[in-house]
Amino acid sequence: MMIIMKVDATPQQVEHVIERVKESGLAVHLSQGIEATIIGAIGETHNLATEQFEVLDGVDIVKRITQPFKLASRQFHPENSIFPLAGFNVGGDEIAIIAGPCSVESRSQIIETAIAVKEAGACALRGGVFKPRSSPYAFQGLGEDGLEYLSEARAQTGLPIVAEIMSQTQLELMVRYVDVMQVGARNMQNYNLLRALGETRTPVLLKRGLSATIEELLMSAEYILSGGNKQVMLCERGIRTYETSTRNTTDINAIPVLKNLTHLPVILDPSHSTGQADYVAAIARAAIAAGADGLIVEVHPDPAHAVSDGKQSLKPEKFAAMVKQVGQIAQIMGRKLASADGSQSPSKLGWI
Amino acid sequence: MMIIMKVDATPQQVEHVIERVKESGLAVHLSQGIEATIIGAIGETHNLATEQFEVLDGVDIVKRITQPFKLASRQFHPENSIFPLAGFNVGGDEIAIIAGPCSVESRSQIIETAIAVKEAGACALRGGVFKPRSSPYAFQGLGEDGLEYLSEARAQTGLPIVAEIMSQTQLELMVRYVDVMQVGARNMQNYNLLRALGETRTPVLLKRGLSATIEELLMSAEYILSGGNKQVMLCERGIRTYETSTRNTTDINAIPVLKNLTHLPVILDPSHSTGQADYVAAIARAAIAAGADGLIVEVHPDPAHAVSDGKQSLKPEKFAAMVKQVGQIAQIMGRKLASADGSQSPSKLGWI
Amino acid sequence: MMIIMKVDATPQQVEHVIERVKESGLAVHLSQGIEATIIGAIGETHNLATEQFEVLDGVDIVKRITQPFKLASRQFHPENSIFPLAGFNVGGDEIAIIAGPCSVESRSQIIETAIAVKEAGACALRGGVFKPRSSPYAFQGLGEDGLEYLSEARAQTGLPIVAEIMSQTQLELMVRYVDVMQVGARNMQNYNLLRALGETRTPVLLKRGLSATIEELLMSAEYILSGGNKQVMLCERGIRTYETSTRNTTDINAIPVLKNLTHLPVILDPSHSTGQADYVAAIARAAIAAGADGLIVEVHPDPAHAVSDGKQSLKPEKFAAMVKQVGQIAQIMGRKLASADGSQSPSKLGWI
Amino acid sequence: MMIIMKVDATPQQVEHVIERVKESGLAVHLSQGIEATIIGAIGETHNLATEQFEVLDGVDIVKRITQPFKLASRQFHPENSIFPLAGFNVGGDEIAIIAGPCSVESRSQIIETAIAVKEAGACALRGGVFKPRSSPYAFQGLGEDGLEYLSEARAQTGLPIVAEIMSQTQLELMVRYVDVMQVGARNMQNYNLLRALGETRTPVLLKRGLSATIEELLMSAEYILSGGNKQVMLCERGIRTYETSTRNTTDINAIPVLKNLTHLPVILDPSHSTGQADYVAAIARAAIAAGADGLIVEVHPDPAHAVSDGKQSLKPEKFAAMVKQVGQIAQIMGRKLASADGSQSPSKLGWI
Repeated sequence: MMIIMKVDATPQQVEHVIERVKESGLAVHLSQGIEATIIGAIGETHNLATEQFEVLDGVDIVKRITQPFKLASRQFHPENSIFPLAGFNVGGDEIAIIAGPCSVESRSQIIETAIAVKEAGACALRGGVFKPRSSPYAFQGLGEDGLEYLSEARAQTGLPIVAEIMSQTQLELMVRYVDVMQVGARNMQNYNLLRALGETRTPVLLKRGLSATIEELLMSAEYILSGGNKQVMLCERGIRTYETSTRNTTDINAIPVLKNLTHLPVILDPSHSTGQADYVAAIARAAIAAGADGLIVEVHPDPAHAVSDGKQSLKPEKFAAMVKQVGQIAQIMGRKLASADGSQSPSKLGWI
Repeated sequence: MMIIMKVDATPQQVEHVIERVKESGLAVHLSQGIEATIIGAIGETHNLATEQFEVLDGVDIVKRITQPFKLASRQFHPENSIFPLAGFNVGGDEIAIIAGPCSVESRSQIIETAIAVKEAGACALRGGVFKPRSSPYAFQGLGEDGLEYLSEARAQTGLPIVAEIMSQTQLELMVRYVDVMQVGARNMQNYNLLRALGETRTPVLLKRGLSATIEELLMSAEYILSGGNKQVMLCERGIRTYETSTRNTTDINAIPVLKNLTHLPVILDPSHSTGQADYVAAIARAAIAAGADGLIVEVHPDPAHAVSDGKQSLKPEKFAAMVKQVGQIAQIMGRKLASADGSQSPSKLGWI
Repeated sequence: MMIIMKVDATPQQVEHVIERVKESGLAVHLSQGIEATIIGAIGETHNLATEQFEVLDGVDIVKRITQPFKLASRQFHPENSIFPLAGFNVGGDEIAIIAGPCSVESRSQIIETAIAVKEAGACALRGGVFKPRSSPYAFQGLGEDGLEYLSEARAQTGLPIVAEIMSQTQLELMVRYVDVMQVGARNMQNYNLLRALGETRTPVLLKRGLSATIEELLMSAEYILSGGNKQVMLCERGIRTYETSTRNTTDINAIPVLKNLTHLPVILDPSHSTGQADYVAAIARAAIAAGADGLIVEVHPDPAHAVSDGKQSLKPEKFAAMVKQVGQIAQIMGRKLASADGSQSPSKLGWI
Repeated sequence: MMIIMKVDATPQQVEHVIERVKESGLAVHLSQGIEATIIGAIGETHNLATEQFEVLDGVDIVKRITQPFKLASRQFHPENSIFPLAGFNVGGDEIAIIAGPCSVESRSQIIETAIAVKEAGACALRGGVFKPRSSPYAFQGLGEDGLEYLSEARAQTGLPIVAEIMSQTQLELMVRYVDVMQVGARNMQNYNLLRALGETRTPVLLKRGLSATIEELLMSAEYILSGGNKQVMLCERGIRTYETSTRNTTDINAIPVLKNLTHLPVILDPSHSTGQADYVAAIARAAIAAGADGLIVEVHPDPAHAVSDGKQSLKPEKFAAMVKQVGQIAQIMGRKLASADGSQSPSKLGWI
């Protein structure tokens, strides 16, 4: 960490900053420039807030040399993190396509969808049973019944289950059913939830918050990783900008940026990042071309009757066409589509 | 709700939409224009998502006539909501100034601060004991010890306590100590938490999410209100934009917009909305001039040693100067500063 | 255009709106709903501002049925616009890759770059001679000398020239030299310039403004088209958002959205949309996978000595690798890379 | 300027950077830290782009010590810039209220408005004669006729004239008529126009671009100042964000930030920054409370018949009420409202 003093900082101010650096357990390297004095703070700094020093009198700027996230950083873990799910690997050569409805609505709906997406080439099934809805009057999900239906769908298709958890109070229930815990955009900084997930050994799919920076996304991953759960996938799902022609703005840049900064797998959700079924395939192709490790896509047998997100859900036949195109792009990228073999997720070990 | 069909919608599509409207328990008013057919859906529509109809074939746009929030809306509750706190009212003629440190750091720190802000003219004491920190390695708050210290500060000064709750699992503890539950920006859409707060009778200070729209803020208030807890204050605390010269962008427009849309009290947090102590007083004055009902301001006896938010914290003497200026603006607005008399908050009735 | 009256609008207000609609030369279709009265304004409405009616007493919302841009709209021109440049077509099956330095710096630099990008597979040469720089103290371009050097580069390679015009006062000079006039992001709403370009017959590459909506981009294209110049390419070059890990945020959604709304060719500038050479190839691939008709890429023989944009410029060998990958993606999309044959641009007819 | 090398930068890379610094005419101060080598570049750096060094191999970050704007900076000009207009001063104790219609529509309209705003307390008259409209089909202004009408209005009321210039080709005409040249948001980075204005001695009111940073606004001011025209007022007029409940988001923080960074007068345009007449007075009061030096407000005798911006225009009586409130706030801020005495603007000296 480098602390750049103001041009007119007094020797007393410099001295005081040096003391504070030492109090934090760091060594000091002092450099008296002509324009500015710079105090290097050497040691374990990723767990120190720059703000601690910014607030001191005479300080101009505090600049990190090392990133504030450590376990998530590629600096300390150059190889890609790869972790196994039901018969395939996430984060390696295989492209994971997770698909299914926004909400589990009924036994038949989820089983029908699971069969359709499996046939079309998906390797995992998504489906929400606890739904974060902006209106208190909207459908809030089937809860445990939904988890039962998902289990049946897994039994019939071999597809592992990805479902969203909204609160640490749901953890004990969900850990018994799901293969991957999804943390939604609205909960990306629900730190109590993140800590609780860090104590499980169930893989986590962590969605980027609606206006979270890439650094904040990685800091949230760090919460989970620092608890000991190393199986975290990151998900770009569109950010909020001034543009209203689509529901969100797909931050496609985030794909190569994240692949550069972190060893964790990165997937993209083109359903939420566009909000319109007509644009999903184009953005799915773009994501894989940009280097993403997978996709999570909303598919519904009858979007016009979906209780939520119908507008952005693909019909199974459109999804199948999308998978074909994505497969071709994957090949050019030296990769192939993952497929599930129905085996128990070796990674799902429940609680520590 | 008005459903505007596409220019080339078929009679079958129109018929299908009409059926779906009726299935939702609404009456239909059909208007066949030259450019477009419009289907009016009449009845209780605030609990219906427009999306339900947007997804149907042939539909162009769905437009609400009534707002999606009902209990929070001024349409149905034209008078300002006013609720009593320890000896003063929030939402009426009095301007509430809530002040205190970002985090409770020690017994002496919070008591010293409480005495100082009381003297300067604050009517309530803020102080965090559970801290949402972007880094898992940062100070996370004193927890129950902090609540004890806050209680002592209240006993000595008569100032009611405002503290942040991060999870419904903390509710049972906090409801015993605090006069106002603060919901932070990161938890504005933590619906499990909002529902839990709706079941208490403790006033809530609901902060706007970092990139939440005004409508989303009101929908989150609706979650609390719909549980039966009518005592909700809204707090503008700056939004995330492209501008980086301040920590956030104070959305000052939100003050008159909210006062127009809702009967709930509206306060502003100039500490977070600017992120720099030097700008706090200017924005505090602006907020009151724009019609805000109060302020929540970070004050620390020694900002340079604060464990968090020191950069944006005022020293007590600067805070006192700010209160004076705000008091003069309040007078022009026909209002006066609130002051606490140490009485038990009549509004704090705990659980239902 | 539909004018939706407020629930409590008076008959007098309705009457007044109807009069105003008629004054604008439109026919009226009145629909008295239960919740709201709707006044349909029928006729040529694309040249009317909705605001004209929004301001009238009793009006709630004014909603366009037809888009405010007409010549740019696919509604009225379903086929793709395709226009010929030196031996290839833009907007059809061929993918146009335009490449070259940010600024023309010297005769040798631009000729060396032209030869390199031609060899690597580019079909046109970019190079700025008038540079919009945020600092008045920065290099502002070589002006006419630069145009001479570009001409020599064209003579040697057969690549048509794309160069930025900053003001209508430069038009007479530039029209003699360049094959495609580039309008930069900062000038997207310089209407005097757009009108002037509408009066030429030189193709225009119109860049999206830094925070322009897609509709505003199309309205700016409409300015040029309405002057009679039908040869307009649109260019997504990244938008300004809160995310700072890249220079801009590539709005990849804009590609399928624009292809849906307009018949004009759409290209992407991955150099500006990312700001970092390391990310250019990934985003270039993504653009073509998403359906873009071409790319404009900054290439410099020695980025470390570039007078501008060195950070985001590719070295020729990296550019060549990128072109290969893009070619493979193009093939999957059923397209191929365009190549210039050195013939005079048939489209460049100068002034009307 | 400080150039911070990467942790793994080689001695050759360090050497190369040092050479480049010297080539730029700067002295070098080398500091070999443990974590990083820092190269201080000492001398006149405000006219150097940081990018020049960022692009070099081994460089991590380049950090300015001095701001990139010099003439606009308070660092080098601590006193407020104050300049006289027709009988009052801008930038000192007086608050300037500029008011008038968006567009000059007719002789009677502008004269009627001028009389009304003068009576209500305005000190200058605004009115557009060249209008930047997003649609090519919309009203584009009365041109020279409009300037004639403005002159008559000035003759009758003594109010100096503020009008927007869109292109340097209009300069010769406008310099004969107007007292203050307004540069609109869309032209904030029209550098050809800014340079041309720098060569006049007519005061300039420079509006912030729709998504311009505060630094970019100051850099645009620097263009004008560096031409020798020292009379520049800055105008915050709302920025583009994701929030759609108002036309723009008033960046009220910009007021104290600008007052801190620059000596130039700062005014606010609450009409554009809110887009709705109902919110104008609240934001006008807030601006003055936050420390602004003035306001520019749209006033129209009959907003419902305004050809542009009717929705955000105040009727004269509402404007008069607003001026009263603003006057009270001004008094608290130790200021008073400016008033014009009809004298020739001493500052308007035309060309150099």
